Amino acid sequence: MLPIVCVVGKSNVGKTTFLEKLIAELTGRGWRVGTIKHDAHGFDIDKPGKDSWRHAQAGSRAVAISSPDKVALIRRVSREVTLDELATLVAGEVDIVLSEGYKRSDKPKIEISRQAVAGELLCSAEELIALVSDRRHALDVPQFGLDDAAGVADLLEERFLRRAEPDDVALLVDGRCVVLKPFARSMLDRTVRALLSLLDGCAEAKDVTLVLRNKGE
Amino acid sequence: MLPIVCVVGKSNVGKTTFLEKLIAELTGRGWRVGTIKHDAHGFDIDKPGKDSWRHAQAGSRAVAISSPDKVALIRRVSREVTLDELATLVAGEVDIVLSEGYKRSDKPKIEISRQAVAGELLCSAEELIALVSDRRHALDVPQFGLDDAAGVADLLEERFLRRAEPDDVALLVDGRCVVLKPFARSMLDRTVRALLSLLDGCAEAKDVTLVLRNKGE
Repeated sequence: MLPIVCVVGKSNVGKTTFLEKLIAELTGRGWRVGTIKHDAHGFDIDKPGKDSWRHAQAGSRAVAISSPDKVALIRRVSREVTLDELATLVAGEVDIVLSEGYKRSDKPKIEISRQAVAGELLCSAEELIALVSDRRHALDVPQFGLDDAAGVADLLEERFLRRAEPDDVALLVDGRCVVLKPFARSMLDRTVRALLSLLDGCAEAKDVTLVLRNKGE
Repeated sequence: MLPIVCVVGKSNVGKTTFLEKLIAELTGRGWRVGTIKHDAHGFDIDKPGKDSWRHAQAGSRAVAISSPDKVALIRRVSREVTLDELATLVAGEVDIVLSEGYKRSDKPKIEISRQAVAGELLCSAEELIALVSDRRHALDVPQFGLDDAAGVADLLEERFLRRAEPDDVALLVDGRCVVLKPFARSMLDRTVRALLSLLDGCAEAKDVTLVLRNKGE
């Protein structure tokens, strides 16, 4: 299952700066990293006048822009999308997802803290897998300096990356990623592949995505 | 199955302008429209200095930005993503996908043509479901004026929207959307839901996404 780790901290504490170092460190070690940025205030990523912006203005609910090396998708949503849902969109293409923000999620967290940004930590020791700070805290959690992306990368490798099972089956139920035991994983994989082998042109299927939607009443 | 229709035409012929009218017309009739813009030259949707831009610069292969009303995902890809793959990302949230460009795809097409942009049409009559132009062409295809978004919307409703089956099961195999007959659709839906009913916490599953990845050698 794709590991998701949240990098949290107070405003202006240096979350993005530390994430840049951590992404570069993990990428340099050969891991494929995806990131999620939470933006409570909305964002305006598309540029006025661009074709895709004009599509959205005219009423398009989902605008995709595709080029040979990059694809972007901008969707209007009626509720905030969960971290698991976002991670499922990139399953198989990255080894770990790091989020900036999402301090209220139930995922493992790394808190960034600086003396210059005073006050208490956002998280309790139980929520944290690491604390990154310019001073020692009286907290029973692995602690790292603000420049020690290598130390945090070691921890992430040890806890999530080296022991990761290959992400061969991912299951999302009503926006929540379901942890599958090996038996359930094999059962779903083999049963669906067996069914597909009966369908025209699907006998050689490699990557499969099956979406079942609730039909309502 | 989610209908995908490509709006094609020569450069500067007015594809985006006609699409704006068509999106607004369909949206006004209550249909949910998604759009795909093909950009052969790459694009730069994110802004230098923004947190998400900094993630990508540091090496993140997939950057998502999530807010309460919108979610954006920017992915690096090693090959161009297919229309079917893009459409699967928004399955269940839109009733029709209109693409701008993709003149080489095998999807039904609408060509936009203007006298001021001279030369032959891009498509043959067999490829087109409609021709939108400021003059009549000697072609056995339904023809509409440049302002007749209502006429094209009528055609799309008649051909794709009113007869659409509810998009309750979508199957993507190796980047290609598979057309399912009713029996195959029910077989996959019921079998997977039956398997899920055996898994903890999945008995009440409504919307399900199952991703099976090829394990390689």
